[in-house]
Amino acid sequence: MVKVNSNYGKLPGSYLFSTIGKKVNAYQAANPDKKVIRLGIGDVTRPLTPTIIGSLHGAVDEMADAATFKGYAPDLGYDFLRHAICEGDYKSRGCDISDDEIFVSDGAKCDSGNIQEIFGLDNRIAVCDPVYPVYVDSNIMAGRGGTYNPETGMFSDIIYMKCLEENGFAPELPTEVPDIIYLCFPNNPTGATITKAELQKWVDYANEHESVIIYDAAYEAYISEADVPHSIYECEGARTCAIELHSFSKNAGFTGVRLGYTVIPKDLVRDGVALHGLWARRHGTKYNGAPYIIQKAGAAVYTPEGQAEIKGLVDYYMRNASYILNGLKDAGFSVSGGVNAPYIWLKTPDKMTSWDFFDYLLNEVNIVGTPGSGFGPSGEGYFRLTAFGSYENTVEAVDRFKNIKL
Amino acid sequence: MVKVNSNYGKLPGSYLFSTIGKKVNAYQAANPDKKVIRLGIGDVTRPLTPTIIGSLHGAVDEMADAATFKGYAPDLGYDFLRHAICEGDYKSRGCDISDDEIFVSDGAKCDSGNIQEIFGLDNRIAVCDPVYPVYVDSNIMAGRGGTYNPETGMFSDIIYMKCLEENGFAPELPTEVPDIIYLCFPNNPTGATITKAELQKWVDYANEHESVIIYDAAYEAYISEADVPHSIYECEGARTCAIELHSFSKNAGFTGVRLGYTVIPKDLVRDGVALHGLWARRHGTKYNGAPYIIQKAGAAVYTPEGQAEIKGLVDYYMRNASYILNGLKDAGFSVSGGVNAPYIWLKTPDKMTSWDFFDYLLNEVNIVGTPGSGFGPSGEGYFRLTAFGSYENTVEAVDRFKNIKL
Repeated sequence: MVKVNSNYGKLPGSYLFSTIGKKVNAYQAANPDKKVIRLGIGDVTRPLTPTIIGSLHGAVDEMADAATFKGYAPDLGYDFLRHAICEGDYKSRGCDISDDEIFVSDGAKCDSGNIQEIFGLDNRIAVCDPVYPVYVDSNIMAGRGGTYNPETGMFSDIIYMKCLEENGFAPELPTEVPDIIYLCFPNNPTGATITKAELQKWVDYANEHESVIIYDAAYEAYISEADVPHSIYECEGARTCAIELHSFSKNAGFTGVRLGYTVIPKDLVRDGVALHGLWARRHGTKYNGAPYIIQKAGAAVYTPEGQAEIKGLVDYYMRNASYILNGLKDAGFSVSGGVNAPYIWLKTPDKMTSWDFFDYLLNEVNIVGTPGSGFGPSGEGYFRLTAFGSYENTVEAVDRFKNIKL
Repeated sequence: MVKVNSNYGKLPGSYLFSTIGKKVNAYQAANPDKKVIRLGIGDVTRPLTPTIIGSLHGAVDEMADAATFKGYAPDLGYDFLRHAICEGDYKSRGCDISDDEIFVSDGAKCDSGNIQEIFGLDNRIAVCDPVYPVYVDSNIMAGRGGTYNPETGMFSDIIYMKCLEENGFAPELPTEVPDIIYLCFPNNPTGATITKAELQKWVDYANEHESVIIYDAAYEAYISEADVPHSIYECEGARTCAIELHSFSKNAGFTGVRLGYTVIPKDLVRDGVALHGLWARRHGTKYNGAPYIIQKAGAAVYTPEGQAEIKGLVDYYMRNASYILNGLKDAGFSVSGGVNAPYIWLKTPDKMTSWDFFDYLLNEVNIVGTPGSGFGPSGEGYFRLTAFGSYENTVEAVDRFKNIKL
């Protein structure tokens, strides 16, 4: 008789963005005449840029001809893309990473959910609180959560590192030593960042305690300040303690195109085993490569034309971010983020709960945001807005915020 | 201190097709003038067909315009594709499956590796022997293998259902009742099939014992005989015991495009839990949808033009299959498969081991096949050839086989 994975039953509610989607769809169905502005899920709205479109068309044509048709891709990605990534994102920044330490995938969400598989079930993980839900949920599903305490909103086996106004939304080194530490900077959801000197402390801590840092750099393209590192491999010693996750979703607008990559340096050895080999085996056995045409589009991102175009995309969204940040400040809200990240993190007014504010905004103001509590217990009383809408909608949304009379 | 997933250490050697790839690359590098014909990995060689190419170009153009740009896809697939699949593969065959029981993914390999996650670690799995390696390897990696016996080539906790010449390469109902039963028909690697009446016995067995059948139908497009079922849902009662996996790789040539789907009927409940909801949660948390442009290409497969074109692809490869089957028979080899499947399964001559025959063929005849023992202990002494080469290469390969003097 079949036993299901009972860990799934420990997950509280459905996946955050599924819940939001259902609420928004229900409201819109009941109120088809209302213009709902979506600043909730971190989904981009600008079209793919000309160089990327050209690359996609070219690759599609290759697939139409037996002489240039491509079947199964190499498990870990085409060499042309691994090389372009390595040159564009690492060598150019002086990071010591080689092409074959880069694993191409169909996105950072998948990688951040799957990476835990190469570790034993008896590791303790540490996450920022609030945090992108996939890190926590994927570990709960695997059986690393322990028991859920509905009063605190916490799992017994997970170390929560609080990110609050008091510490500038950046965690402190945990007193109880975790085995696996998830860090995401620029941060989703708070938009906070970390300086290179601060990140170096985490690298030293992980090396000292033989922990592993899983560093999610999905938003590095939004960094505007000089002392904020674009990669954890800018820190000394990161090759022996850090895995880095990257996305093409937010820089190049690939949310619906699906491409990402993970870096595992060959020097990263734990328990006597090189993690590089484990992840290679995982890719080889349970994955079959990203589509050729999508990998060609990814390579186009690293051409000079591609780089100029995606800078235009990032600039477009960051103009939105500034507009929201400044507009909400003017309107009297307490806000942060939005300088090195496409997310604005605000305190709910009048000490409303995150979900109450969500419902209020949806029903009364017709704006969709993301309740901070959906990212963890320390997100309660906060709310995330994204800069990924159109400029026109962003301006209209800020105007609506200015008219809120609570 | 980090503990790695020690189950990875139980996997014998590297992933089968990675090993083959390395051997072939090494031979070709040392012998650049030799023409090696690859009939090993089941990778297609014909280009994508015009309707699919047109659909891809059209979808790429949509991504270039803000008005038609698509960001994140729905977790479980676009409705247009789920509906096209449901009509084309199920309703048309009288199978009682609805659109929302279809989960679109980036391929059947990923799904067949990931599906075990929704089950507890204390289930016993049963596999055919020989078998597509992913079913076994993904369960070993999760911890359902037990201990490996190098003498038998078997894991202690896995039930192996022998598929030999004596039983027509179709397994018998196991005496020890498994929780999860992997079946693949038309079979990879043997090319064997099962009649609807025989498959009905498996469905009845699974319902009686509350087991779950994971039915891999990746090769159903190659079925040429009338009494061979295209879907397990042609059998009565399959809605309460079966999950079905499908691929676009072999019918439409999508090995490098990446698209597949899994069906979980809502009536499939085990341990008091609907498996449909578990898989939806897994998709929502650890996956982010197949690319829009690829889903559009998938929908094009179900148009009348697309159907005619992919029939042309299947016919092309099946001409190869017949040519290999008949040619090797004429040459005195003992062969099977190749009638409802693109695989030919042959006995190695002179009782050579599978790997000895592999090395002989590669080094002396410059043909790449797949050693039967790579698919499990009962594959020892057998060898798989695929029909996915070009017709010209297939003819040349068969000529070379006819000249083998052992």
